[in-house]
Amino acid sequence: MMDSESSNKDCLGWAARDPSGVLSPYSFTRRALGSDDVSLTITHCGICYADVIWTRNGHGDSKYPLVPGHEIVGIVKEVGSNVQRFKVGDHVGVGTYVNSCRDCEYCNDGLEVHCVKGSVFTFNCIDADGTVTKGGYSSYIVVHERYCFMIPNSYPLASAAPLLCAGITVYSPMMRHKMNQPGKSLGVIGLGGLGHMAVKFGKAFGLNVTVISTSTSKKEEALNLLGADKFVLSSDPDQMKCLAKSLDFIVDSASGDHPFDPYMSLLKVAGVYVLVGFPSEVKFSPASLNIGAKTVAGSITGGTKETQEMINFCAAKKIYPDIEIVPIQYANEALERLIKRDVKYRFVINIENSLK
Amino acid sequence: MMDSESSNKDCLGWAARDPSGVLSPYSFTRRALGSDDVSLTITHCGICYADVIWTRNGHGDSKYPLVPGHEIVGIVKEVGSNVQRFKVGDHVGVGTYVNSCRDCEYCNDGLEVHCVKGSVFTFNCIDADGTVTKGGYSSYIVVHERYCFMIPNSYPLASAAPLLCAGITVYSPMMRHKMNQPGKSLGVIGLGGLGHMAVKFGKAFGLNVTVISTSTSKKEEALNLLGADKFVLSSDPDQMKCLAKSLDFIVDSASGDHPFDPYMSLLKVAGVYVLVGFPSEVKFSPASLNIGAKTVAGSITGGTKETQEMINFCAAKKIYPDIEIVPIQYANEALERLIKRDVKYRFVINIENSLK
Repeated sequence: MMDSESSNKDCLGWAARDPSGVLSPYSFTRRALGSDDVSLTITHCGICYADVIWTRNGHGDSKYPLVPGHEIVGIVKEVGSNVQRFKVGDHVGVGTYVNSCRDCEYCNDGLEVHCVKGSVFTFNCIDADGTVTKGGYSSYIVVHERYCFMIPNSYPLASAAPLLCAGITVYSPMMRHKMNQPGKSLGVIGLGGLGHMAVKFGKAFGLNVTVISTSTSKKEEALNLLGADKFVLSSDPDQMKCLAKSLDFIVDSASGDHPFDPYMSLLKVAGVYVLVGFPSEVKFSPASLNIGAKTVAGSITGGTKETQEMINFCAAKKIYPDIEIVPIQYANEALERLIKRDVKYRFVINIENSLK
Repeated sequence: MMDSESSNKDCLGWAARDPSGVLSPYSFTRRALGSDDVSLTITHCGICYADVIWTRNGHGDSKYPLVPGHEIVGIVKEVGSNVQRFKVGDHVGVGTYVNSCRDCEYCNDGLEVHCVKGSVFTFNCIDADGTVTKGGYSSYIVVHERYCFMIPNSYPLASAAPLLCAGITVYSPMMRHKMNQPGKSLGVIGLGGLGHMAVKFGKAFGLNVTVISTSTSKKEEALNLLGADKFVLSSDPDQMKCLAKSLDFIVDSASGDHPFDPYMSLLKVAGVYVLVGFPSEVKFSPASLNIGAKTVAGSITGGTKETQEMINFCAAKKIYPDIEIVPIQYANEALERLIKRDVKYRFVINIENSLK
């Protein structure tokens, strides 16, 4: 059995071999299709900053060879005997996790990302069978149908990829904190993969959206391409002062370190500040929080229920991430450019046409 | 007019004269009763930590002579011609603010503490007429009826005093963040005037209440006097570990500096941490917030609508602060003891029987 599996390395992928993070071709085995599993031919995979972190052993827990990628889309090629929700040929996606206990209060509530026993991340994580999960920089993947999402045929597969992490990571807290109230005002800090989706969701929700950035270079695209209503340069005290106490909500997607008090001062009474980035620390004055009874909330991806809801919402509202499609051979350069924030606004690897 | 006023210093009080903060007798004038005003004979005034801060010029903005006190209760002695809600003889209270614009979105919503033009604090603040407000360490006060609360005759006046600041300061965020769901779990950090009320409200809401303290000396009273279900010593890693991911809510009333990450780790997924104290800074790891999608929220007193609601709730549920009643002549010593946290759990000055 082991012999047969190890000799049958039919999954092509690209893997990092050590903390240099350099990716190169790597063949491996996926598990045999189980009765509840879906096997999909991967057509595209988005490039998330998580790919940079773990290919380079940023958290000290990388298991090499490491196949990154958790913004996976493709076409169903096979389904297990119990699978009800999917059939061969369906367009589907897989996000940041591929397993959970399916038995705890959170799993039962469709919030598998908060599984009491821990959700199993799509790559670099020990799965229930003891194997290390391998991500979407690969030709196919086998997952339990629960962690698979239906992508409407009308929605381009390449565009769907970034929804699986960047999209749900901002959509989930925006919904949880009731940021979908038309007429209210939203500030978006950081204009990368997550931030640009926050702008798009904000407009779809009918919000008045202000992009707050450290660089004027983002102004034109923020207003004209992404459709923000206003652009404010955070380093300009006058512009910031004009915005004081004017925002109902803020989505902070900046991953770099920055002060919090100046941004919190932009919130109205009872304003909500959602953090989706991972700076090295969060630090502010209690007055910034207490005066005006404000709220700072965190979030991390979302559950399966809301992920499917978000995909359907994007399809219904024709919300598409802005992407740069690249071949797998460009993955190393793409990761380098991502580190330099040189991307508008998400790289998506065209797996089906480049990974041979 | 000025002559008549200045010669008519019929309000007796105790005032601090300089940043030593030492209080001594001081006579002054209150404004003449306006058509919307209520004048009340003060029977009791609670001692809040704010009294320590401003008598000692802790924020550098103290205006001497300074008459502190914003947990005021008494009996109506006169009402203006337009006053509808109160009549002579009514038991009433006045809290942390005595004026606001009464015209902005927040005032219109009963959230005068967030008034766009700024609410006028009960002492050491410039009122609309240009005078400096003087607090409840005094024989009577004149306030617009809007900032006056009805205290049911069944509720002891002395016990009502701490509700006006300590009570509403914890009740307001607990209600706003839906901490009144029976069966859920609440952690209370800090067991002073605010914290002990959080325990009482928690029990009245049907919560499972855990007191988390740096000192075992609080254990017996927390469990037996205040009715907490559990007591955890924060310096004991084993006790803290047992409590990990178990709390729906935390009310942090500790005013001293402390780390936040260890307490945030006690919250369940989507748990809410409410800060009502003013440490020098709030600092935590983004993982403490993001993993588990937690919320940290601030608060400061409450609006007039919810203050009256809280008083009525306390009367209906027979919730009484634990107080130590002292004469005005003991005020200086009481402030010293408050600095040393040597009070269970609120000093209340018996104004009517000691201020002559």
